[in-house]
Amino acid sequence: MNTGELVELGQQLRVDSVRAAAAAGSGHPTSSMSAADLMAVLFARHFHYDFERPDHPGNDRFVLSKGHASPLMYAVYKAAGAIDDEELLTFRENGSRLEGHPTPRRLPWVETATGSLGQGFPVGVGIAMAGKRLEHAGYRVWVLCGDSELAEGSVWEAAEHGAYEHLDNLTLIVDVNRLGQRGPTRHGHDLDAYARRFQGFGWHTVEVDGHDVDAVDRAYGEALSTKGQPTVILARTLKGKGVASIEDREGLHGKPLPEADEAIAELGGSRDLRVRVQPPSTDVAPRPGDRGRPELPRWGKGEEAATRDAFGEALSALGTARGDIVVLDGEVGDSTRAEAFAKEHPERYFECYIAEQQMVAAAVGMAARGWTPYAATFAAFLTRAHDFIRMASVSGSGLALVGSHAGVAIGQDGPSQMGLEDLAMMRAVHGSTVLYPCDANQTARLVAGMAGLDGIRYLRTSRGASEVIYGPDEEFPVGGSKVLRSSGRDRLTLVAAGVTVPEALAAAEALDGEGIAVRVIDLYSVKPVDRETLRSAAEETGCLMTVEDHHPEGGLGDAVAEAFADGRPVPRLVRLGVRTMPGSASPAEQLHAAGIDAESIAAAGRLLVGEAIVS
Amino acid sequence: MNTGELVELGQQLRVDSVRAAAAAGSGHPTSSMSAADLMAVLFARHFHYDFERPDHPGNDRFVLSKGHASPLMYAVYKAAGAIDDEELLTFRENGSRLEGHPTPRRLPWVETATGSLGQGFPVGVGIAMAGKRLEHAGYRVWVLCGDSELAEGSVWEAAEHGAYEHLDNLTLIVDVNRLGQRGPTRHGHDLDAYARRFQGFGWHTVEVDGHDVDAVDRAYGEALSTKGQPTVILARTLKGKGVASIEDREGLHGKPLPEADEAIAELGGSRDLRVRVQPPSTDVAPRPGDRGRPELPRWGKGEEAATRDAFGEALSALGTARGDIVVLDGEVGDSTRAEAFAKEHPERYFECYIAEQQMVAAAVGMAARGWTPYAATFAAFLTRAHDFIRMASVSGSGLALVGSHAGVAIGQDGPSQMGLEDLAMMRAVHGSTVLYPCDANQTARLVAGMAGLDGIRYLRTSRGASEVIYGPDEEFPVGGSKVLRSSGRDRLTLVAAGVTVPEALAAAEALDGEGIAVRVIDLYSVKPVDRETLRSAAEETGCLMTVEDHHPEGGLGDAVAEAFADGRPVPRLVRLGVRTMPGSASPAEQLHAAGIDAESIAAAGRLLVGEAIVS
Repeated sequence: MNTGELVELGQQLRVDSVRAAAAAGSGHPTSSMSAADLMAVLFARHFHYDFERPDHPGNDRFVLSKGHASPLMYAVYKAAGAIDDEELLTFRENGSRLEGHPTPRRLPWVETATGSLGQGFPVGVGIAMAGKRLEHAGYRVWVLCGDSELAEGSVWEAAEHGAYEHLDNLTLIVDVNRLGQRGPTRHGHDLDAYARRFQGFGWHTVEVDGHDVDAVDRAYGEALSTKGQPTVILARTLKGKGVASIEDREGLHGKPLPEADEAIAELGGSRDLRVRVQPPSTDVAPRPGDRGRPELPRWGKGEEAATRDAFGEALSALGTARGDIVVLDGEVGDSTRAEAFAKEHPERYFECYIAEQQMVAAAVGMAARGWTPYAATFAAFLTRAHDFIRMASVSGSGLALVGSHAGVAIGQDGPSQMGLEDLAMMRAVHGSTVLYPCDANQTARLVAGMAGLDGIRYLRTSRGASEVIYGPDEEFPVGGSKVLRSSGRDRLTLVAAGVTVPEALAAAEALDGEGIAVRVIDLYSVKPVDRETLRSAAEETGCLMTVEDHHPEGGLGDAVAEAFADGRPVPRLVRLGVRTMPGSASPAEQLHAAGIDAESIAAAGRLLVGEAIVS
Repeated sequence: MNTGELVELGQQLRVDSVRAAAAAGSGHPTSSMSAADLMAVLFARHFHYDFERPDHPGNDRFVLSKGHASPLMYAVYKAAGAIDDEELLTFRENGSRLEGHPTPRRLPWVETATGSLGQGFPVGVGIAMAGKRLEHAGYRVWVLCGDSELAEGSVWEAAEHGAYEHLDNLTLIVDVNRLGQRGPTRHGHDLDAYARRFQGFGWHTVEVDGHDVDAVDRAYGEALSTKGQPTVILARTLKGKGVASIEDREGLHGKPLPEADEAIAELGGSRDLRVRVQPPSTDVAPRPGDRGRPELPRWGKGEEAATRDAFGEALSALGTARGDIVVLDGEVGDSTRAEAFAKEHPERYFECYIAEQQMVAAAVGMAARGWTPYAATFAAFLTRAHDFIRMASVSGSGLALVGSHAGVAIGQDGPSQMGLEDLAMMRAVHGSTVLYPCDANQTARLVAGMAGLDGIRYLRTSRGASEVIYGPDEEFPVGGSKVLRSSGRDRLTLVAAGVTVPEALAAAEALDGEGIAVRVIDLYSVKPVDRETLRSAAEETGCLMTVEDHHPEGGLGDAVAEAFADGRPVPRLVRLGVRTMPGSASPAEQLHAAGIDAESIAAAGRLLVGEAIVS
């Protein structure tokens, strides 16, 4: 396309953005209009992609970090012939593929769900890392950001990471249209302010008039020829560009144009230009294949081992068997034991430093490219990435997340380091799996098993060593549980997981000595939960007591209660959990103070069974 | 103190850090030793503070962002005479005030709990904003960061915010000791790399040898004399400084020194130097007082209003009555309606742009100074600040958080904008209060009432208008509920909150027409929950059905189940919630697709009651 055609294409993208939002009665046409020329030049001149083969390994990748500009994205799809005009006008309708914010669940050309700002760029960094460090492929990653979203810290985690990894296959385009949702941004049209920040982080910067298609074309060319560092193109644009009455005006964010027909006329009316997007290169290295079943580490019953150690060893073994496994660390791999993987497979280990948002975003980017990522940090610090985990589930992304140092059982380090909300956070993620092993063999099996699941999978590990209670060949299906102790005389069932399993077993032993028979269930699969085993135990023993090293809300107690939300009468339930704010103390003191050690469990059990006799 | 004494004081702080960690058998002495000289000079020469009056309004404020260097902090307290040597050696013991990471719950001189990295600095920005914009006070804020934590995006949100607000009352000291937990940082001792980043964000930077006490003294002086912008002091230091065998060595993070006695000898043995910290200025403006009860907005029954609108109006009225109310926005105040407060009280409204971590951190900082902050954004985007909310609860901080655009009921914008995990996140926060109003009068009352509560309080609002069902004088105690419909013939109780209340009422009406009497409870207080009303309803009607616009885990269903975890037999429970991933659709279509509209509720109710008759 020549200059005149590019200008026309930009106008077409504006017109179609206005039309889509007008048809929907909602959406963000003004935010689309500012970036229309940027997209026209990119897709007509520089992007390499096969819309018929979105899984082509040589395809360039485009991420719309400013996801609310979805009308513009869909207008590009139409210009590229991927969707027709009829579908364009289904924007935001019930059942349409063209959602308010684009998602890969519905559209094969979308790499990652966006709409929570400051996320597309970090995910793009992850894709570019996969291209450069894992696939050694020639494809490029292009990300379109808004200027408002540069206020998000996650953007600067990504900037740091992108420069550190020398991602010259990544181009960030910033649509500096001066206006956020509520009003002007901090820096308005001061492109230099953004340039100073990116230069400080080691990026090559280009400032350009985002409505001058030739200048934009040259800027992309400069990005393509810049080696050793990523490039950011800072484009001065006008929100609502092309329609005088709305151009650069406040108060029009996220609204259809008031006079759409007049606006379309002012933009020169509808067009039907077609973009011929250039095809991808076919020069892509083959992916590493599987090398059989993993040889998982094995422990003998009665040995002592920490589940975090078992995680590290099992992950390393899994990485030997499967070339698609990649591991991401938040600068705590020596604590989570992810470092065991780094020693064996350094080429697939990514140190993300203390930047949990970027760690999860990079995992999402790698998952989008077909890799199987495990990202690990302290359970407590995964809360830093909560919004990224939430959006990963919107994407339908497949991630394994591992949180170590769960609960008060870590001891002296105190509450800032204790994961006490992680089960609640992970259970509430749509389609998630939540696992909490209590011994080393169980951990190893679950670490391997979670690789084959869909969606967000979470494994919670513990800091301290505990006795191995399962043999190395025992199996632990997701959604299952283990009845560790049972008899026909049981008058109470203890439901435990992780560190509370040995405490529950000891409590049961003590109560048995007093003539109170107690069942013990290891509920290692917190979600999905083993409803049948819980129901049988409840009916046979009359009451269930859950014991968890987690706040009483959202964790094991809630998971067990949910199992009984089926409309049938529920037996007696009691929950023990961490109800006070811990301080520093030894692990044993912590469990006792929280009322979840063997002695506390036995005392609560005595009370409950005693009450049962009385009532 | 002269140069020689400052050097001696630095050595004393090292010795006491080593002694404390040795006594505890854990802790971070090497991370303390690198910053000892920085602290010696600060407290002996530049810090103004009355340890006997930590609430003195003129006190300078110090934040230990690298909270793991707590031994150093406690060594300073000892040198200042605030604690004695005996207490120093209780470090990390059960019951000691000297926790692994310092918290204001235990120690009056600590401004905010740290230990999750990258949080102390943003909180310090909040304190400095309070000093400059609210209190017009002369106190200064000093923050000590590690170099590793500069990888956190939240640090750059704070850097942006601090420069934008021209916080020349804030000094950030970075202890660049080159080593993180697992190994070297990205930039090692390259102070220029950090300087470029901070300069890019508009900070004055000073590079200094962090072990040259005279140079450090001059650097602090330069910070004090810099006007119009904040200063960062980048100090080159050595981890483990002063003990040759451990200095600048990897693999020694977070461990007591292997040969503590020899190390202490090498450091010159124990000393008992006293620091005379300079007193604060007494020149502090009085705080604004109360101006009586707020005149809350009032709506007539049957009017239509959105709870987000009621939030904005009530907040503005509350701000008129109470001068301590401050409001923080994440650049969505036009959507959350916090903007109503901005119009009336611009001097107490803080636009934090799209930086939710900084928004919550600034609220924590202002709360630490005695202000009563309300921070509002979309419920979905509060997940971005989850780790800050968690740490705020460790601090015992008093915050009101408001999340708008809850649930699928927002309609076309789609899942990226829908808060569907927020109740789970907020319920699991220790000591939190969780409120979810269904009409405008109820919202107004709860907005005013939550100002008087302790800890983290969360209010969930809705985007669309709904009918006002309560009179303006009705009261809504926290921990209460409202029985909206009941009879002696009820065979089912619907428990709803927020947008599902009108749906439940309509379902009950429909079922009543079929001869099935149904009770309806508005459970506006999700935490604490009204156990007695729920128990009575369950016993009188036989079964409870919860209906929520939230994922089925962690929200209303779990809250109701928790109310029955008291060891007494539980009636039949069923929960309706959002079990699929929504797309774009109208609000009514969304509620129907999720199975939580009146029609779906009635259908589920019919099934449940039918089963009850059969069984």
